[in-house]
Amino acid sequence: MSNKKIRIAIDCMGGDIGLSVTVPAALLFAKRYPDVHCLLVGEPQAIEQTLRAQGNVDTSWYDILPASEVVTMADSVEVALRRKKDSSMRVAAQSVKDGIADACISAGNTGAWMAISRYVLKTLDGIDRPAIATSIPNQKGGATIMLDLGANVDCSAEHLLQFAIMGSALASIVDRHERPTVGLLNIGEEVIKGNEVVKKAAELLRSSGLNFYGNVEGDDICKGTVNVVVCDGFVGNVVLKSIEGLAKMVGSMLRDEFTRDPLSKVSALLARPVLNRFRDRVDNRRHNGAALLGLRGIVIKSHGSADAYAFGYALQRARGAVLNGLLSGTSQAVERIMQSVNLHEEQSGEPDTRHTSEPSSS
Amino acid sequence: MSNKKIRIAIDCMGGDIGLSVTVPAALLFAKRYPDVHCLLVGEPQAIEQTLRAQGNVDTSWYDILPASEVVTMADSVEVALRRKKDSSMRVAAQSVKDGIADACISAGNTGAWMAISRYVLKTLDGIDRPAIATSIPNQKGGATIMLDLGANVDCSAEHLLQFAIMGSALASIVDRHERPTVGLLNIGEEVIKGNEVVKKAAELLRSSGLNFYGNVEGDDICKGTVNVVVCDGFVGNVVLKSIEGLAKMVGSMLRDEFTRDPLSKVSALLARPVLNRFRDRVDNRRHNGAALLGLRGIVIKSHGSADAYAFGYALQRARGAVLNGLLSGTSQAVERIMQSVNLHEEQSGEPDTRHTSEPSSS
Repeated sequence: MSNKKIRIAIDCMGGDIGLSVTVPAALLFAKRYPDVHCLLVGEPQAIEQTLRAQGNVDTSWYDILPASEVVTMADSVEVALRRKKDSSMRVAAQSVKDGIADACISAGNTGAWMAISRYVLKTLDGIDRPAIATSIPNQKGGATIMLDLGANVDCSAEHLLQFAIMGSALASIVDRHERPTVGLLNIGEEVIKGNEVVKKAAELLRSSGLNFYGNVEGDDICKGTVNVVVCDGFVGNVVLKSIEGLAKMVGSMLRDEFTRDPLSKVSALLARPVLNRFRDRVDNRRHNGAALLGLRGIVIKSHGSADAYAFGYALQRARGAVLNGLLSGTSQAVERIMQSVNLHEEQSGEPDTRHTSEPSSS
Repeated sequence: MSNKKIRIAIDCMGGDIGLSVTVPAALLFAKRYPDVHCLLVGEPQAIEQTLRAQGNVDTSWYDILPASEVVTMADSVEVALRRKKDSSMRVAAQSVKDGIADACISAGNTGAWMAISRYVLKTLDGIDRPAIATSIPNQKGGATIMLDLGANVDCSAEHLLQFAIMGSALASIVDRHERPTVGLLNIGEEVIKGNEVVKKAAELLRSSGLNFYGNVEGDDICKGTVNVVVCDGFVGNVVLKSIEGLAKMVGSMLRDEFTRDPLSKVSALLARPVLNRFRDRVDNRRHNGAALLGLRGIVIKSHGSADAYAFGYALQRARGAVLNGLLSGTSQAVERIMQSVNLHEEQSGEPDTRHTSEPSSS
C-alpha cells in the first residue's frame, strides 16, 4: 500500500442533495489525504461543472467514471437493479469488482445501494445477506458496533447469527478486540422475553462459539455493555434515527438555554471551549459512514442527508477501511468464525443451551 | 371530585428496590397533594416499618391494603397470574375494579402488571390488548405520545390500528388535540419500505378515519412531527430505552467536559443555572410513569429502576390521569373513534388506499 494510492469510487449523484455535497467533500478530502485518488462517478459534464464552481484547477487527484443514470431515493430496488444498468451506483460498485477501486461509497437510496452492491460484488461464503454496521460512541469512551441498520427487514434467527459473526469480525479488525462480546437487542434481560425470532436467535448464539453475552436492552448501546449489538434492520434503523433525533434535540435545547437571557449568554461565552468539545463529541456528522458488511468488496453508505462536512467523514471511513484491511480481515474472520461455529455444531450434536461466556471449544 | 379525595392504590412491593423507594415517595407525594389519599398495598408489617423509619406520625393520608405475596421481576406471567393470587399487584388492580381506588400504580414486572390488570379490569370494547403509552418531550416544546412500549411483542396490523385509536384518544384528552395526527414508525417515508405488518397497518390506518399522517422515522419522535407515534411493543421498548441511554450519556459527557480542568470548572460554576435548567428538561426521571391504555380502569406503570424522585413523578401522573378524566375520556374517545372507523369501513366497502390527511367522511 506504500506507493500505491488508495482508490475510492464516489457516487457523486447520490444523496438528498447530490453533486453540490459530494464533489466539494471529495475535493477537500483529496487535499487532506494525498494518499487518496478519487474516482468521481456520475454524469461527466455535471461533475466537471461542479468542480469548476469550486475554483479548482488541479486535476491530478481524480478521474471521472461516466455513468448516464441516477438511482433516485424513490426508486424501487427492482428499478434500480434492472432498469438503470448504467447508474452511478452500479458503475461505482462495478469499479470495485473490476479492481479499479479499493472501496466505493454512496449517499443514495439505501435499499438500492445494498441490492446493487450485493448483485455486483456477491456475498462472502456463509453470508446470505449483507448488513449495515456502524459504530456508536458509548459512555466508556469507546464505540459500540451495531448492526443491521436497515439493510434487512423481516430477518430470521439465522440472519441475526450471521450479523453477529460479521459484527464480531468487524470488532476484531477495527477495534482489535480478541474475542468481542456480542449482545442481542431485546426488551428484557430475562430469557422469557422477546419475540419468537429473537428467542431462537439467542439459542443459536448460545451454541455458536461466539462470545455471546446474552440479551441487551436499548440503553446498553450507549452504556457500552458489549462490543457488538445485533438486531434486525427495522429495529436498528429506527433506533439509530431515534438516537440521532434526540442528539439533535439536546443540541438545540442547550443552545436555547444558553441564549435565554443576557446572563446565560455571558456564561455561554465563557463556557464556549467546553461546549465546543461537547458538541464535537455528540455531533453525529462525525460518525457518518456505515459499512456494508458481508460483501466481497468495501462498500460504504453515507447518510442521505449528509452535508459536505458529514460526507467527508464517510470518505475518511472508506479510506480507513482500506488501510485497516477491512475486506481481507473481515473475510478471514468470518471464515474463521464460520469454521468454529460449524465445529461447535458438529461437536455438540444436539442444540446447545449453555451460556457461552465460557471459552469456546475451538 | 371537589370534596372527595383522589384514591391511589400503590403497589409498595414492586420495582427493583421496592418499599424503600415506594413508601418515602408516597409520603412526600401525600404531603404535597392534600387532595390525595394513598392505599399502600403490600406486606403490612414491612410497610409500617418503612413508614416508621421515615419518622412519620401522621396516619391520616394512607390506609394499608394487605397483600401476602410479591411478583418478582423474574416471575413469568403465568406464575404472576395463577400462582400468586394475593400479590400486591393483584390487590392493587382489584381495588380499582372494586371502586375502592381511582387509579393503581406499580413499578414491578411489566409483563405481569399488564397481564394482571388486564385480567382483573378487562379491556374496553374493541380493544384486544392494552398498550403502554408515554409522552416523550419533543423539539417543538410539546410532547410526542408513543405506544406500545413493551406490553405487546409480535403485533398484528390490527393491533397497531388499535394502538393508534388509543393514542389518538389519549392525545385528545391530555393534550387537548381536536384531531391528533398519527404517524406509523417505519424505516422510511416511502410506501415501499417497511416489513409486512407495518405495510398492512399503514393500509388500515389510511382507511380508518383517523388523522393518519403516514410513515414516520425514528428522528420524528423528538422532532415532534406528529402527536402520536405508533409501533409494536418490541420496537417501542427498545427505542425508548435507547433514547434514555443516550440522554444519560449526554449528561455524563457534559459533566466530564465541565470538570476536565480548572478553567472548565469555573465556567461550570457560572453556567450552573443554565445547566440546571437543561438537566431538568432532559432528566428522564421527570417523565416517569406510563399509562396502560385500553383497560376499564386507570393503571400506571413506573420504571422498575425508579428512585423515590422518579416514582413521585409517576404518582403525579396517576393523580393527573384521575383529574383529567382519563378513563371516561379515553373510553368515550375510543368508542367514538371505533364508530367512525366502523362507519368508514362500511362506507368505503373496498380497502381505501387514499392518504387520509384529507378530512375523513365521518
